[in-house]
Amino acid sequence: MSTRIEKDTMGDVAVDDSRYWGAQTQRSIQNFPIGQDRFKMLPSIVRAMGILKKGAAQANADLGELPADIAELIVKAAQEVIEGKLDDHFPLVVFQTGSGTQSNMNANEVMSNRAIEMAGGTMGSKSPVHPNDHVNRGQSSNDTFPTAMHIAVVEELHRQLYPKVQKLRDTLAQKSEEFKSIVKVGRTHLQDATPITLGQEIGAWVAQIDYCLGQVRHAEQGLYELAIGGTAVGTGLNAHPKFGDLAASYFAKETGYPFVSAENKFAALAAHDALVTTSASLRTLAGTLMKMANDVRWLASGPRNGIGEITIPENEPGSSIMPGKVNPTQSEALTMVAVQVFGCDAAVAFAGSQGNFQLNVFKPVMVHNVLTSIQLLGDASEAFNDNCAAGIEPDLAKIGENLDSNLMQVTALNRHIGYDKAAAIAKNAHKKGLTLRESALASGDVNEEEYAKWVVPLDMTHP
Amino acid sequence: MSTRIEKDTMGDVAVDDSRYWGAQTQRSIQNFPIGQDRFKMLPSIVRAMGILKKGAAQANADLGELPADIAELIVKAAQEVIEGKLDDHFPLVVFQTGSGTQSNMNANEVMSNRAIEMAGGTMGSKSPVHPNDHVNRGQSSNDTFPTAMHIAVVEELHRQLYPKVQKLRDTLAQKSEEFKSIVKVGRTHLQDATPITLGQEIGAWVAQIDYCLGQVRHAEQGLYELAIGGTAVGTGLNAHPKFGDLAASYFAKETGYPFVSAENKFAALAAHDALVTTSASLRTLAGTLMKMANDVRWLASGPRNGIGEITIPENEPGSSIMPGKVNPTQSEALTMVAVQVFGCDAAVAFAGSQGNFQLNVFKPVMVHNVLTSIQLLGDASEAFNDNCAAGIEPDLAKIGENLDSNLMQVTALNRHIGYDKAAAIAKNAHKKGLTLRESALASGDVNEEEYAKWVVPLDMTHP
Amino acid sequence: MSTRIEKDTMGDVAVDDSRYWGAQTQRSIQNFPIGQDRFKMLPSIVRAMGILKKGAAQANADLGELPADIAELIVKAAQEVIEGKLDDHFPLVVFQTGSGTQSNMNANEVMSNRAIEMAGGTMGSKSPVHPNDHVNRGQSSNDTFPTAMHIAVVEELHRQLYPKVQKLRDTLAQKSEEFKSIVKVGRTHLQDATPITLGQEIGAWVAQIDYCLGQVRHAEQGLYELAIGGTAVGTGLNAHPKFGDLAASYFAKETGYPFVSAENKFAALAAHDALVTTSASLRTLAGTLMKMANDVRWLASGPRNGIGEITIPENEPGSSIMPGKVNPTQSEALTMVAVQVFGCDAAVAFAGSQGNFQLNVFKPVMVHNVLTSIQLLGDASEAFNDNCAAGIEPDLAKIGENLDSNLMQVTALNRHIGYDKAAAIAKNAHKKGLTLRESALASGDVNEEEYAKWVVPLDMTHP
Amino acid sequence: MSTRIEKDTMGDVAVDDSRYWGAQTQRSIQNFPIGQDRFKMLPSIVRAMGILKKGAAQANADLGELPADIAELIVKAAQEVIEGKLDDHFPLVVFQTGSGTQSNMNANEVMSNRAIEMAGGTMGSKSPVHPNDHVNRGQSSNDTFPTAMHIAVVEELHRQLYPKVQKLRDTLAQKSEEFKSIVKVGRTHLQDATPITLGQEIGAWVAQIDYCLGQVRHAEQGLYELAIGGTAVGTGLNAHPKFGDLAASYFAKETGYPFVSAENKFAALAAHDALVTTSASLRTLAGTLMKMANDVRWLASGPRNGIGEITIPENEPGSSIMPGKVNPTQSEALTMVAVQVFGCDAAVAFAGSQGNFQLNVFKPVMVHNVLTSIQLLGDASEAFNDNCAAGIEPDLAKIGENLDSNLMQVTALNRHIGYDKAAAIAKNAHKKGLTLRESALASGDVNEEEYAKWVVPLDMTHP
Repeated sequence: MSTRIEKDTMGDVAVDDSRYWGAQTQRSIQNFPIGQDRFKMLPSIVRAMGILKKGAAQANADLGELPADIAELIVKAAQEVIEGKLDDHFPLVVFQTGSGTQSNMNANEVMSNRAIEMAGGTMGSKSPVHPNDHVNRGQSSNDTFPTAMHIAVVEELHRQLYPKVQKLRDTLAQKSEEFKSIVKVGRTHLQDATPITLGQEIGAWVAQIDYCLGQVRHAEQGLYELAIGGTAVGTGLNAHPKFGDLAASYFAKETGYPFVSAENKFAALAAHDALVTTSASLRTLAGTLMKMANDVRWLASGPRNGIGEITIPENEPGSSIMPGKVNPTQSEALTMVAVQVFGCDAAVAFAGSQGNFQLNVFKPVMVHNVLTSIQLLGDASEAFNDNCAAGIEPDLAKIGENLDSNLMQVTALNRHIGYDKAAAIAKNAHKKGLTLRESALASGDVNEEEYAKWVVPLDMTHP
Repeated sequence: MSTRIEKDTMGDVAVDDSRYWGAQTQRSIQNFPIGQDRFKMLPSIVRAMGILKKGAAQANADLGELPADIAELIVKAAQEVIEGKLDDHFPLVVFQTGSGTQSNMNANEVMSNRAIEMAGGTMGSKSPVHPNDHVNRGQSSNDTFPTAMHIAVVEELHRQLYPKVQKLRDTLAQKSEEFKSIVKVGRTHLQDATPITLGQEIGAWVAQIDYCLGQVRHAEQGLYELAIGGTAVGTGLNAHPKFGDLAASYFAKETGYPFVSAENKFAALAAHDALVTTSASLRTLAGTLMKMANDVRWLASGPRNGIGEITIPENEPGSSIMPGKVNPTQSEALTMVAVQVFGCDAAVAFAGSQGNFQLNVFKPVMVHNVLTSIQLLGDASEAFNDNCAAGIEPDLAKIGENLDSNLMQVTALNRHIGYDKAAAIAKNAHKKGLTLRESALASGDVNEEEYAKWVVPLDMTHP
Repeated sequence: MSTRIEKDTMGDVAVDDSRYWGAQTQRSIQNFPIGQDRFKMLPSIVRAMGILKKGAAQANADLGELPADIAELIVKAAQEVIEGKLDDHFPLVVFQTGSGTQSNMNANEVMSNRAIEMAGGTMGSKSPVHPNDHVNRGQSSNDTFPTAMHIAVVEELHRQLYPKVQKLRDTLAQKSEEFKSIVKVGRTHLQDATPITLGQEIGAWVAQIDYCLGQVRHAEQGLYELAIGGTAVGTGLNAHPKFGDLAASYFAKETGYPFVSAENKFAALAAHDALVTTSASLRTLAGTLMKMANDVRWLASGPRNGIGEITIPENEPGSSIMPGKVNPTQSEALTMVAVQVFGCDAAVAFAGSQGNFQLNVFKPVMVHNVLTSIQLLGDASEAFNDNCAAGIEPDLAKIGENLDSNLMQVTALNRHIGYDKAAAIAKNAHKKGLTLRESALASGDVNEEEYAKWVVPLDMTHP
Repeated sequence: MSTRIEKDTMGDVAVDDSRYWGAQTQRSIQNFPIGQDRFKMLPSIVRAMGILKKGAAQANADLGELPADIAELIVKAAQEVIEGKLDDHFPLVVFQTGSGTQSNMNANEVMSNRAIEMAGGTMGSKSPVHPNDHVNRGQSSNDTFPTAMHIAVVEELHRQLYPKVQKLRDTLAQKSEEFKSIVKVGRTHLQDATPITLGQEIGAWVAQIDYCLGQVRHAEQGLYELAIGGTAVGTGLNAHPKFGDLAASYFAKETGYPFVSAENKFAALAAHDALVTTSASLRTLAGTLMKMANDVRWLASGPRNGIGEITIPENEPGSSIMPGKVNPTQSEALTMVAVQVFGCDAAVAFAGSQGNFQLNVFKPVMVHNVLTSIQLLGDASEAFNDNCAAGIEPDLAKIGENLDSNLMQVTALNRHIGYDKAAAIAKNAHKKGLTLRESALASGDVNEEEYAKWVVPLDMTHP
């Protein structure tokens, strides 16, 4: 490995010459060998750092804080970061300085060196583009990292969560419509209850998902407020007074989301309540998906000794010998994701409470868990949609058989023959193992014609 | 104890004659001796049951489902429940049927018997006012209990949480304004940082509380949608088609909150996502209050060997021998409440994910924990306000001393003499134990007049 | 209300003359009006304070630190506290000073005044028995409260948890034995699987409970180490060097549990890891009980359209019209308790991580949640035992019907006719809705005699 | 990419010819695109699968269930898996079938194909080594995957957790010994308290870590019981009756840990309580490390306006301009790890409660989170040790200055001049800003000689 010498205020550090990063990044690699195999700062954060440094350079140029040519070089380097071309130059892990300082310096160093390279300079020389004086101009880790957190989360919500969960929601809505006339047994307390339609049953899942997506979107509003412009403690010391607003407007232009500089930048550094709210909204969504996935696997349970009212696609051999044993593997994956999201959220909320004075130093772990929840919920919703939900079909024979044997339809007789006689009919059916119809006719209180007219499950569903 | 015989479909039960409850309540007392000393269904739920049964009777009367005189009797009995006069007649605990069935029956039985009493009838006779046929008309535990959950939580938010947290928020806002010119050391990573004002420091807490209250209020919107009208499985079987909407309008009139019958009543029985969202918003508020309370106790730490920049009221002897040792007891109570709220929320979110088919049977434990969070956050905010926040005062001597010794103000010299010389001044001060001013003058790079003009902490706060 | 004047170092306070408490207790009532209706310090803590003050007085007398007559008076007053006679004199709530200082003072004040009363003195005079100098001799809140926490938890484990959970465990073990020959369908992934016995199914719950109880008992070992002897910071300043050990030996004698003074008393004040471990062990038990209670309600689901392989007692009307609808209310109560215990544990673990320097100031909230978990798990286990587990019976008809229709027994044919032919038989049965037997005979690969010899479900269970 | 055709009971699947996996693995890749970038099944699980299949082959050979030559081939292939040579052939993610079926099949397929290759056969032919009939002989996913979970966790505890945490513990123990004579201010409630030694302060952390490691080791005992031998539902159907015990003895020989076949294999499939206990013990350790790391950063706070009683190594530039600002980055990384571990544990405990009947289908997510906690705690402890703990030094000047100004040493005068006079001295010092010594001498109650004799901080620490 060929190396070059990079410097910071503590001295010289040898860096792999094929990498753009500098001394501080290199020190962090050495000082924080914690989960390096799978806890790297996520690409969405790297991309957000690109968006941030690009917009910051543009704002600084507009405000006369950076020469136009320097700004232009930074913009070009940042563009490459945005496009993911320099992802290999961001080696740091989540478990570093709690303000994300080292990832901010990683971004500064990479964009400085890449800009220097584009300008024909010498990497590590900090000239003509200095990582601190130019790339980090008017900024501090304390306001850039939380800014990048918000940008990354908003982008990933739109890229990974909304479309994939919506796809599942839309499939379920279509199934709900498709099955709106299939009458089946309702169940409360896991016990047989009065009839509903399969469309209504699935429609409840849709209503829950709609509510939850609404909550995530509401939480997203809070993420539009960015720490940028606050610098080290929230006062904006060393930044141009208009820098925060202007930079945020560039981020908005770049991403299409209405980012602004936060009204209270002290709070924006010291706390991340909007992120905690977002995490909580993802947890609620996870709970909703868990309930839906559980319903699906119970409704598909069997093949002979379960409920078996729906069938789900057989995507893989469930058992090497047992045909008809279709394990609800997509439900299992999705419910495992749900508990993982609960875990991520527990970490986020705990971390969110632990700020002191002008800084919360749990920033990287907070955003990492939120991004993990987003990705897993998105991926699992799509996998569940494609490999399970889209293939849900009613088992009409089983549904009918269950409905016929269900005694709860006795409720419909109350209005005609009174509670007492109705109860006696149901009690007799239960005792003797009769269907409700058989018991009703045997009672002498209802004749065939009346039974056919009065006990109409579909009517009982108020479709 | 004199007893009377009450009956239900399972037979006779002896009940204390001084109580209005009936057979099903009595069975529940015997079957669920779980935490009876301190896990009774809360009075706010009992009150909500009164509101519900009153409005239901009015709606049923309007719709011709109940005779006017019967409805009138129920309304009167319900009014007493609303006013808390019958609280002693609601003995059941949280850990009962997960749909709250027994508390719904408790409500039906008490109001039926009280109505019978008012009508001059015989308690237990179910005549002229029947607990099921009349008081529970067009209802099921499955839709009444979640309706009461929402009503109770909305009322308690307004009664216990908003005013008490707002009071604390307003005190802090007033302190923030009052201390807006007091310049002090900022702190990041627990390390000295550039100056801020005490007003800004406290203002960040205000901004956080404002955000959190906004989130609770947003969550509250979801609680306006009520399960009423769904009856046993969401279809509304056995309720008049207009019952849900009309009953909800009566609840709205009674309480002043815009309750409506939920758009999807299947989801309203099977899940309680709005309650989970509310719980999460209370958790975020708890995290915010924890951060604030921690800042307060750290800022007040000392008296000699801590930070000591503020003083807080001495409400009780901290130590029998040590004057000046003021333990931050209100911070301690508030942070203990915060962790309790985290615990309550964990229970709520877990429970919220565990519904099956048409019913979630963790209703009582969910609402109990949300109401607990509301009460504790309200009570503790008020206690903290009255006994601590209102008495926060700056220790100007310590603030000044800290500020004078703080080296971070060197940042202000960068613009005038460059980073390198400024850094050398700070380094020299740190090494030799000088103040920044002493080191700056000793450097020869800055004279007294310049120092006085350039290093102005208040300016650095961008007040 | 007649009052007397009590004094502390801050001055005079008027106290209800019918109460033994003094000035500091009274101040705490006024300063901490937080959850006063249901967050009182629990009686088990009050009792532990009695045990503590009694043993401390005895130890101090032995060591010449207290005159014998003073010690004797304290012992008498403490004995009344131990016996619960003075519970009404402990009005303070959990959310107070985080070291439990005020509850320690409450104990000191009550025992001092009661001792004074017994000696014929004047309450509030602090003579002849002084709350600090005598009752609190050689102690600090910082070591007494955590000592009382451990004593209370150990006692409640033995009083409330072990016997009640064991009772449930024993009932299940007896059922497991009783049903050891009842062969039924096994289920994995909620899908039909190869046979097991009902005894094996229930036996797994027993094995889980045994493991969990073992873990709680292991955690209990850590609670035997007491903070007593550490006084304010762990050094034992102002206590006789032998006080901690001797006092602990008195607590051991009083309670019958092998309490000792902790090896590292600094850690005993600054952290409560043994309590966190205990809480976690209760959480694992809660998870186990949740699994068991869920199995019970699923196995009892129906009556017609569920699994229905067991019946559970009908303790209350499940539905006013539907005979045979037995709601699994005890399962619901127990699973609600389980989620509550998860919530309590979340609070305990969070609190346990928040110590600073020589003190963790989340003591009351930690012990309160542990005691709550103990009580609820004990109560709910007993209720579940008495009202559900003891009445579990197999529905032999349904079990047999399910077993007959189960196709998974095809596995037994593999050894005789090979996988391919066996699979074809199962596939054919599944497709045509045949029983396995019918399909096997139709295949021509197995005759009646062979089928009867080869497919013996009981053998497949390896009983 | 060159492909070959692999088959399973559902038909043909094209597989990259450079990979050993077969049809079921390939289907899983396609069906579960969930978090594929960073949620792969961990190498420690893959290794455990190698250990398992090797020992299973050996046991089956011994029992006559496998021909010796087939077993030998499997052992060789398994050995390569154990040594990590085939890690690239295990592409599946955590979020798959909840029993880990697909990872079990991945193992079967890879070892079968590798064995076939070594035997000169055709990959995909399943001959001479069949993935199910031979590699999976006497096994089911339901017993192999939980067996691998236990093996992996035990191995990683010994490889990653114990040595790294012990290293930190030993460094702290050495520091505690080294600093045993450095007397400093104690702190309770964040307020100045009576003196302790720095050795005592650090020693409390050591005591906590010792306790926590003891708990992890205790939890590990439960992991020695393996599901192996239970096959699909716990009955052991299709496994030789001696297979479980014999296979476990091979695993013990291979790893050096005393694994045995679980006493109750039904519970071993249906629940993972030993894993939940392990996770909880890691959470307690995380809480302990959080407390320690917080103490370290507070003690090192400053440089001018904090506590500043210790110094920690400066590993990276804390601020580009501010010398002496040493951010406690290792504390920040470690506390972020702590909250992550809390999150992992929340997921594990939730998942652990969600079993149904004969199977818990949250296996992969449970083991993944436990392994994550182990790795992160190990890595972060080592990083903290190397980059922070090892370099902790007292700032004797600041310690002395704080101690001198501390008023709490007045406690030592009580015994000589009485509480009242001592309190007056302290009060006067506090009011006038005097040292305790100055105030004592000014009082006239103590002379210089007496003060020097009576107020000896070191004696107050009971060293």
